[in-house]
Amino acid sequence: MRRQTYIFPKPPSILGSSAVGGKLENEGPLGRCFDKTSDDPYMTAETFEKGESKLQKQALLHLFEKTGLTEQDIDVIFGGDLLNQCTGTTYGVRGFGIPFLGIYGACSTMAEGLIMASAFTHAGYAECAAAVTSSHFCAAEKQYRFPLNYGGQRTPTSQWTATAGGALCVSAKGTAPYVRGFTVGKIEDLGVTDAANMGAAMAPAAWSTVSAFFRDTGMSPDSFDMVLTGDLASVGSRLFCELAEREGVDISARHNDCGKMLYDPDKQDVHAGGSGCGCCAAVLCGHILPQLKTGRLKNVLFAATGALMSPTVSQQGESIPSISHAVWISSESGVKS
Amino acid sequence: MRRQTYIFPKPPSILGSSAVGGKLENEGPLGRCFDKTSDDPYMTAETFEKGESKLQKQALLHLFEKTGLTEQDIDVIFGGDLLNQCTGTTYGVRGFGIPFLGIYGACSTMAEGLIMASAFTHAGYAECAAAVTSSHFCAAEKQYRFPLNYGGQRTPTSQWTATAGGALCVSAKGTAPYVRGFTVGKIEDLGVTDAANMGAAMAPAAWSTVSAFFRDTGMSPDSFDMVLTGDLASVGSRLFCELAEREGVDISARHNDCGKMLYDPDKQDVHAGGSGCGCCAAVLCGHILPQLKTGRLKNVLFAATGALMSPTVSQQGESIPSISHAVWISSESGVKS
Repeated sequence: MRRQTYIFPKPPSILGSSAVGGKLENEGPLGRCFDKTSDDPYMTAETFEKGESKLQKQALLHLFEKTGLTEQDIDVIFGGDLLNQCTGTTYGVRGFGIPFLGIYGACSTMAEGLIMASAFTHAGYAECAAAVTSSHFCAAEKQYRFPLNYGGQRTPTSQWTATAGGALCVSAKGTAPYVRGFTVGKIEDLGVTDAANMGAAMAPAAWSTVSAFFRDTGMSPDSFDMVLTGDLASVGSRLFCELAEREGVDISARHNDCGKMLYDPDKQDVHAGGSGCGCCAAVLCGHILPQLKTGRLKNVLFAATGALMSPTVSQQGESIPSISHAVWISSESGVKS
Repeated sequence: MRRQTYIFPKPPSILGSSAVGGKLENEGPLGRCFDKTSDDPYMTAETFEKGESKLQKQALLHLFEKTGLTEQDIDVIFGGDLLNQCTGTTYGVRGFGIPFLGIYGACSTMAEGLIMASAFTHAGYAECAAAVTSSHFCAAEKQYRFPLNYGGQRTPTSQWTATAGGALCVSAKGTAPYVRGFTVGKIEDLGVTDAANMGAAMAPAAWSTVSAFFRDTGMSPDSFDMVLTGDLASVGSRLFCELAEREGVDISARHNDCGKMLYDPDKQDVHAGGSGCGCCAAVLCGHILPQLKTGRLKNVLFAATGALMSPTVSQQGESIPSISHAVWISSESGVKS
């Protein structure tokens, strides 16, 4: 079997992170984890798309404020989002003058960005590298499904694209949390064609990557406080645990999913749960990384998932290819001093 | 000033490359540089989008054939394209089972992919890494401008999106050509709003990155056989040389542009010239890299450019942000043995 995992000899450090969100995200169980939330879905911009760009800009500004860093301190920024041609990112980071490398991983973008930022700082290509992403419910519905004004009904398996953004920055030197290693995922496609059931499409990709990590490292779910997928939500999470069980791995006790954490299923009408690049970005940056910093969480395997289709190709009858990238984040560097 | 350039102490090697194209590309001056061309714009698929995916698949298959490598030898592949959600790539590489990291840089994608593949192999994250991209005239016109059936007239500054694809693979060990270093570009936006004048929008990004490379390295245009931008075409190339001249740099004697090379302006009606991710991918992979391998070319600064807008945001009145990434490719490793 091919080795998909790389473990850093000297784990880079996540210097800081930030999360921003919308009204529904603020009202959810993680509301207090956001640095800023806005009741206005336009974020005071003229369109949803421009509003989404503001989410990324705000996430970066809060990151700078919290870390004391400036634009000049960031050598490269990795970013992407769900909008056609990743314009949420392009227009969000345009004003900063920071060297930029665009990435596309759909909802797995924050994991990919964290991998890239860690890889570039660990190798000395950058002293400090940032990653940023976002999603926006109204912009995503309009682009992927129906404009909101259409009033289409949502099926029970559908997920709610989070209006949220997250940013983080990584350096070769620093304190906890540390990026210990990463697994680059393969594209998995078991033939799901229902664009309203992303969880089912993405679950095989999540298990493929998480099981590759365990195989490559010899670790198991018990090595982690949390195996955190995102965003499989309730339907995909069930399938993910079932796929693990079929291979004799009991992962359910350690597993959680960003799409299940961002909203309250009893009080918030989000059907299967949250999704969108901003969902796991906000959960990671606003909720998980701070706990890894204080040591409340010791080891987290963060496996964000992305559905790589477009409405154009879906309407041509194609199934939904998915991907997941995993990052091992720890409160300990693992390096003996 | 911030340093944007990284020079590899041990330059990774480009093990091989491949180029595929359509009918018009075959009829152009570089026709014989392609490994395969197809007269059918659908590439025997049902839609233009599925045809574009076939370009990427074919480019990779030819790369494997030429290098003797198999899917199992490639540890990671970096790819992206212009289609919404980069589906040209997703569906093109889906069947290979190679770990995949999606990138988005519009027409600068091949430079970004080459940077990533070089960065990952040099640091030991991968033994062998590939980069792939494509573009398709019919798919791009339909998505960015008008469906072909509409029969809209094209303005003189407009560029012709190449129906082409290219792939290459990089390893830490190997022979010429070598990747000596790279410059990650910043987003530049001087306010151009005409989506039929990409050359004007992208020229400032190209000069920003090329001048950063010269500033960071102390090198000059004279250090290179060729400073190869892509795809500024005729309008953007004039502006690029003018921007250089304003800063006292005479670059015109060394400058060429992939968008000017792919087609014959006298015989082929492509207006300002070629564009699209596939244009500079095909020119680099089919025409330039083989000459760097034999030593016919010694040093090339490859600065691919991308316009990062989408039709959605352009129609909302936004200007066109652009980016360019530069890669120094050489027939010599520069390492004293």
